[in-house]
Amino acid sequence: MSSASSSSSLSQRAEAILSYEANRVVPALGGIVDQGKYDAEKNPNGLINMGTAQNSLMYDLLREKLNCSMESPKTWSDEMFMYSPEEGLPELRDAIAKLLTVTSRAVTPLNPDKMIIFNGADAGLEAMGFVLCDSGEAVLLPVPFYYGLHSNLKVRPNVDVVPIPLTKELRPGETQPFELTAERAEEAYQKAVKEGVTVRALFLVNPNNPLGDVYSRQQVLDLLKFAKRHDLHVVFDEVYMSTVFEDGVSHNSIFQFREDEIPDMQKVHFVWTFSKDLAMSGMRIAVNYTWNNKIHEALKSIAHFHGTPTGWQAHMAKLLTDTDWFVNVFLPTSVKNLKEAHRYFTQGLSQLGVPCHKGTAGLYVWADFSKFLSAPTAEAEMELNQKLLRAGVQCTPSVTCQGQERGWFRVVFAKDKSILETALARIKTALQSN
Amino acid sequence: MSSASSSSSLSQRAEAILSYEANRVVPALGGIVDQGKYDAEKNPNGLINMGTAQNSLMYDLLREKLNCSMESPKTWSDEMFMYSPEEGLPELRDAIAKLLTVTSRAVTPLNPDKMIIFNGADAGLEAMGFVLCDSGEAVLLPVPFYYGLHSNLKVRPNVDVVPIPLTKELRPGETQPFELTAERAEEAYQKAVKEGVTVRALFLVNPNNPLGDVYSRQQVLDLLKFAKRHDLHVVFDEVYMSTVFEDGVSHNSIFQFREDEIPDMQKVHFVWTFSKDLAMSGMRIAVNYTWNNKIHEALKSIAHFHGTPTGWQAHMAKLLTDTDWFVNVFLPTSVKNLKEAHRYFTQGLSQLGVPCHKGTAGLYVWADFSKFLSAPTAEAEMELNQKLLRAGVQCTPSVTCQGQERGWFRVVFAKDKSILETALARIKTALQSN
Repeated sequence: MSSASSSSSLSQRAEAILSYEANRVVPALGGIVDQGKYDAEKNPNGLINMGTAQNSLMYDLLREKLNCSMESPKTWSDEMFMYSPEEGLPELRDAIAKLLTVTSRAVTPLNPDKMIIFNGADAGLEAMGFVLCDSGEAVLLPVPFYYGLHSNLKVRPNVDVVPIPLTKELRPGETQPFELTAERAEEAYQKAVKEGVTVRALFLVNPNNPLGDVYSRQQVLDLLKFAKRHDLHVVFDEVYMSTVFEDGVSHNSIFQFREDEIPDMQKVHFVWTFSKDLAMSGMRIAVNYTWNNKIHEALKSIAHFHGTPTGWQAHMAKLLTDTDWFVNVFLPTSVKNLKEAHRYFTQGLSQLGVPCHKGTAGLYVWADFSKFLSAPTAEAEMELNQKLLRAGVQCTPSVTCQGQERGWFRVVFAKDKSILETALARIKTALQSN
Repeated sequence: MSSASSSSSLSQRAEAILSYEANRVVPALGGIVDQGKYDAEKNPNGLINMGTAQNSLMYDLLREKLNCSMESPKTWSDEMFMYSPEEGLPELRDAIAKLLTVTSRAVTPLNPDKMIIFNGADAGLEAMGFVLCDSGEAVLLPVPFYYGLHSNLKVRPNVDVVPIPLTKELRPGETQPFELTAERAEEAYQKAVKEGVTVRALFLVNPNNPLGDVYSRQQVLDLLKFAKRHDLHVVFDEVYMSTVFEDGVSHNSIFQFREDEIPDMQKVHFVWTFSKDLAMSGMRIAVNYTWNNKIHEALKSIAHFHGTPTGWQAHMAKLLTDTDWFVNVFLPTSVKNLKEAHRYFTQGLSQLGVPCHKGTAGLYVWADFSKFLSAPTAEAEMELNQKLLRAGVQCTPSVTCQGQERGWFRVVFAKDKSILETALARIKTALQSN
């Protein structure tokens, strides 16, 4: 082993990264598509990216607001040129705690001292994988899952995923397609243990990505009890908390549960980011929240490597302090825009013969293209994906999400109606092509 | 092992982080010092931080310049709200390549495609440790060394340091104290191999931190040959490249060597940051540069977790494009300021009976307080450190840098004269106290 490693330029773990990146199933853009990024005026033949979950419906409103809140560099304090504390600027943590207390409808105000700033939720989730699992251990994830989560856990922490398979077909007792039940979690856990896998945690993305499902209060409680039974941590990834666009549906954040309702507070953790709810993925601000002091300390050491610029943190803190604007202007506008875009796009897909799973939140739909597959195989799914790419639309095929059923795609709809219109026309072209 | 790990809340590697952090020798501030941060007006009894290498002499000039170059959010493009490419914005890589080509006096212009942006040199160095070494392997480092480098390599990558001991006392053939020679490197390497340690790389911090030494062209070549002999990578940490303040001394960057002069280009890598040369540690911009494509690819995967805000990258790119200003205004002013502060501070220390190693670059001096120790021991060094802290000055004791000789401290002098004056008075108090 020693001679093998010294004869190579790279460490074995770096070779593992390269092999992981080379082998993971991602839409193969190179060679198929080289027309650049879609722009109605500058590049009308460019590719429409419906693969990356970003909300481009909100940028105008954000520009306006940022313009009022950004300070001139002339007035910057010396601190803005200097390193920030490892856990992030106190005023930013305060501002996020205040906002999330309102948007999560927390039963107790969030404590900024339990919060650590990361430069993005991917980094925060990677850190959770690192502190909860040793190399080769695993976490439970309902599948289909957000494909990035796998990279976050695998690339550096070398943490594996144990899938909890969800399906379109309902089992007895289930009320909706792709329903996550404690029974399915239990089954997946037992199977993993039997295979000798050490499972350390359940990652619960709520609202779900890519399904757009919001878990009921009872589901969350059942899963917490399941986790407690097996001494598992539960990481609540609630980055889509404020994207629920369906009337009558409300999100059940972990912050809505009293401490005495949660079987083991020390094993419950939370991740949130500016990227989704606030449509600011470019801002690189996320938080990990934990009630566990040791995990807090370990995360702080890791957060040293994931800082965001000090001046930027200060600006973002100032921006967020207008909680009223976010709660009464920004978020209602965002939800209204998402609702309209979702309705327009799913109706359009439906007219093309593509039904969607009835998600009620998120920036994407889970769309069923199965009847357009030449066969119910991964190869046929990737073939359809290539047709979509050639027609100028990039989506996320189910295989990249470890989905069990072929022909599903995650498609991001948080875009202007004119772009969605073009996208629908292109999807039509793809479905009609041979 | 499985039961041990499942009974604990944390992974073994997280426990290792906590134990590393708890055991590393750092100035113990808690309980000794609680008077907050020094501010001449608002908190004149606060602690003067001479431990963190930041250059507070340049903030006024930077504020002025940033004010001209920063765009209003009103004019921000949509891209500023969106994810940036993993290797960083092309315009930022271009701008850095252009600046470094001039400041490093490169024989060939730097290629922005060989560059990957990280949110700080600590993250970039951590990534180098990760791709070059497996867990438990080691890199060679001349000691005393910048204490943060050890954390970077140890906390997550679990890479150990094999010290190349440098000493005040000269050996035959050496011309100056703490001289790094290929002979000393060879000796340290052989010792490590004999002890069964797998050494994968030499990290060369040039200009040296904490010594302030600039390596000669011949030294760099000798060390490259030494590395080649043992198939080692060499990571050139040149983050203090433009802080050389001594007349007649010039820095020999790796970019000043022709490719045919370097024994193995594929094993040579480079790290630089805005934090030191440009006095902007708060900006969280650094680059890794490598000629090795596989390492480039592995670094890119890791860089995904170390992005800096997209809009910020765009601003910094715009700021940097005025290369003339940096080369003809900023850097000469910075060097002049450092030279003056260095002269003032070292003369002051000298009057207190504290000689300094004759460094010619950096933001700090390596100061010899040994005659003020009660004994030549680590305990006595920490005792003196506590005296300094109680007097209101935070420095970096040699033990934190794995220095072999007791009584040395790294002291950051890149501060206004009025602060240095206060600091000198406080150091005097500390040295006279019992």
